[in-house]
Amino acid sequence: MEKRPLILVTNDDGITAPGIRKLIHIMKELGDVVVVAPSTPQSGKGHAITLDATLHINKIKTINPEDHEYECSGTPADCVKIGIKEILNRKPDLCVSGINHGSNSSINVIYSGTMSAAIEAGIEGVPSVGFSLLDYDWDADFDGLERYVKNISNKILTNGLPDGVVLNVNFPKISDTPFKGIKIARQARANWNEKFDKRINPMGKNYYWLTGVFENLDGGEDTDEFALGNNYVSVVPVQFDLTAHHFIQTLNTWSL
Amino acid sequence: MEKRPLILVTNDDGITAPGIRKLIHIMKELGDVVVVAPSTPQSGKGHAITLDATLHINKIKTINPEDHEYECSGTPADCVKIGIKEILNRKPDLCVSGINHGSNSSINVIYSGTMSAAIEAGIEGVPSVGFSLLDYDWDADFDGLERYVKNISNKILTNGLPDGVVLNVNFPKISDTPFKGIKIARQARANWNEKFDKRINPMGKNYYWLTGVFENLDGGEDTDEFALGNNYVSVVPVQFDLTAHHFIQTLNTWSL
Repeated sequence: MEKRPLILVTNDDGITAPGIRKLIHIMKELGDVVVVAPSTPQSGKGHAITLDATLHINKIKTINPEDHEYECSGTPADCVKIGIKEILNRKPDLCVSGINHGSNSSINVIYSGTMSAAIEAGIEGVPSVGFSLLDYDWDADFDGLERYVKNISNKILTNGLPDGVVLNVNFPKISDTPFKGIKIARQARANWNEKFDKRINPMGKNYYWLTGVFENLDGGEDTDEFALGNNYVSVVPVQFDLTAHHFIQTLNTWSL
Repeated sequence: MEKRPLILVTNDDGITAPGIRKLIHIMKELGDVVVVAPSTPQSGKGHAITLDATLHINKIKTINPEDHEYECSGTPADCVKIGIKEILNRKPDLCVSGINHGSNSSINVIYSGTMSAAIEAGIEGVPSVGFSLLDYDWDADFDGLERYVKNISNKILTNGLPDGVVLNVNFPKISDTPFKGIKIARQARANWNEKFDKRINPMGKNYYWLTGVFENLDGGEDTDEFALGNNYVSVVPVQFDLTAHHFIQTLNTWSL
């Protein structure tokens, strides 16, 4: 009998989020699952790691005594590091992160704890994927994603991924119209036009909340934003070699 | 008379760090300087932004009443966002981040608050560069870097940078041997082999400190690690389009 794959599951919304519960449920059909996820929400934490504080892990008591679930006091990237190095007794065959409550398409990949966890696993040499649903609702409908999540994860287990590449999968918000399919896409050029909501505290001192409006600056039809806007699931291969190779030649003419 | 450039200065070690004080000193020769930097150290904070808490900014009283220095309670990326959108009355001509106490070469660019600040400015369309010195000592010698920092910053002001590209400049530790020059380089494939230092607190509960050993996995002679190891200053052009374009064609054969 073939050995079942070992799958590390994490996220950034925290271990109790409905999105990760769904992901755990799906992954149990594919292999042996170990969950290492943040004990508190970590949205927007990017690729932060905990250097200036201690880390704590706690095994969760679940109904099924065969479950392996750990909450970690750190960031999503910390969870992956401590999961691989301290909790698992061998390198996992797959790391899945999510399912995130909210989009991680286009520039959001940079700010995303979900995708940073997937990228961290990629850095450690583990085939890895992040899943996100364009719905911030805690009660969002994740059921319709199951066959896509299962299929993509299975394909990664079968085909592997090249060194230095992880996948960023985003799902349109579920509606009455079924998804049109999957588009392999590139990251759209986009940004957030920040609006700082300035308020005055009871002591008369200013403070700010960071808010903003998302701006897609990219008219391309091969982007994740275009796919999602047209009710396709987007799959972007993501790398952590940030070198802008196309600019090296020009930079060599600057005679620095 | 030509208008002096407006320069935003930030870092991740905090506004009082010797590295940023040196950078401010150098930038005052090139233009009008506004400093917006974290009030507390933010090393390893990656591209975290503050979504779940309020932000506070405080104008610092310095000896020179013409100084414009603000400390911000947030992350380096927050500093850049609030600097551009709330503090400055026009988009800056240049953003410089650093000089970091410690390396941001190779994979460290992912974890680095210094480089995330520079990348955030790039996302906002501001020509931008991060400077780092391979010396964690608070009393590190930054004097020898002055002419390089000035020259590179001047070249960016003159030539601009393409949309989506920022620079990551790393300096070898200062020694008796002068730098051999500057190498334009690519990011080396490297990672941290984490070692979790497990301890027991007075209540008998385990806790961990994240530590690790840096591993350069890349034998290339065109990398930042190779340049730094041979006493060259490394300059890597960095992009925030993370798409692994080379893998799109293969991914399209997976029939997802």
